[in-house]
Amino acid sequence: MQKGRLIVISGPSGTGKGTICRELLKGNDLDLSISMTTRAPRAGEENGVQYFFVSREEFLKTSEEGGLLEHAEIYGNFYGTPRAAVLEKLEKGRDVILEIEMDGAAQVKRSYPDAVLIFILPPSLEVLRKRLTGRGTETEEQIQARSSQALSEIHRIYDYDYSIVNDSLRDAVSDVRTIIRAEHLRVGAGSEALVRKYEEEE
Amino acid sequence: MQKGRLIVISGPSGTGKGTICRELLKGNDLDLSISMTTRAPRAGEENGVQYFFVSREEFLKTSEEGGLLEHAEIYGNFYGTPRAAVLEKLEKGRDVILEIEMDGAAQVKRSYPDAVLIFILPPSLEVLRKRLTGRGTETEEQIQARSSQALSEIHRIYDYDYSIVNDSLRDAVSDVRTIIRAEHLRVGAGSEALVRKYEEEE
Repeated sequence: MQKGRLIVISGPSGTGKGTICRELLKGNDLDLSISMTTRAPRAGEENGVQYFFVSREEFLKTSEEGGLLEHAEIYGNFYGTPRAAVLEKLEKGRDVILEIEMDGAAQVKRSYPDAVLIFILPPSLEVLRKRLTGRGTETEEQIQARSSQALSEIHRIYDYDYSIVNDSLRDAVSDVRTIIRAEHLRVGAGSEALVRKYEEEE
Repeated sequence: MQKGRLIVISGPSGTGKGTICRELLKGNDLDLSISMTTRAPRAGEENGVQYFFVSREEFLKTSEEGGLLEHAEIYGNFYGTPRAAVLEKLEKGRDVILEIEMDGAAQVKRSYPDAVLIFILPPSLEVLRKRLTGRGTETEEQIQARSSQALSEIHRIYDYDYSIVNDSLRDAVSDVRTIIRAEHLRVGAGSEALVRKYEEEE
């Protein structure tokens, strides 16, 4: 059995990463990585479903022991990706999807170099601004700032293995699946088992 | 426009490389690399279709000038892959398929590192022997020798970027197409043009 691949989906905000991941998970052939957080559960949230809810002490202990693939502090709460939970799934041959902001993606690549980093791009900055306007949660100024930030973030494309322009959701999801399949065909550590199969025949 | 990719299909003999390439070419979205040779054209063969037929002098001159991505001598005749013809197609955005034996594949990777090397494997050595028996052109001893050779060749898998077990022709062809699509999504030299598009918008 081939080991699963860790697929990291990242990119500027407003590019539709979350929607792509939700679509991908409908196939039931991929697992979502569940983050660990110190923030309190909201109504309806369950431990181990949306997040692993832990105390500050537990979070810091896990982090110090190298138990997180990446972590960040956001508005005073800690968030992180538990290494053990992800690795267990990969060992079982499941591919794992991790949707994460860009600093987190770079951290994951450092702590787990076999991770496959996919950068999701907007069709254009114009479309990105329209999407953000459509959300109705930000002022015109904030949207301009986000668009400028997106442009500077787009220059970080070289930290990634693949990039997908999210022009159409269907095509973007299909492209992620194409990348996952191709990564399984890649020659690497997993090829040893393949070679052994022929050796045993002789 | 994105540059085309050079896709090298190789592997032990009897694994169905030729059939896979013929199927791929039916799509008309790929070009076949045409080799240069010093052997005489056979009945029905046309210059520039099956091969570029050249004199020994012309072949050696091209080779000395670095004009071949790889070359080999087989039964006293020279065969080689003309660099200019391949690069011209890639520049036009066409993907080029090159079916070649394993030493040639390794030479291509050295002379054109962006080449994508795909290794075609038999489902098993048993199946390989049956395929060779089916051809009816070789003795039992020759088939055994080929099978042993195939096993030693399989260990060269690590020279390749991808491997495909040719269990079913349809799946193998689909896997090659998957790899080509994924390679077009890869972040690399071609990503500069993509980034420029966003820069020009601002």
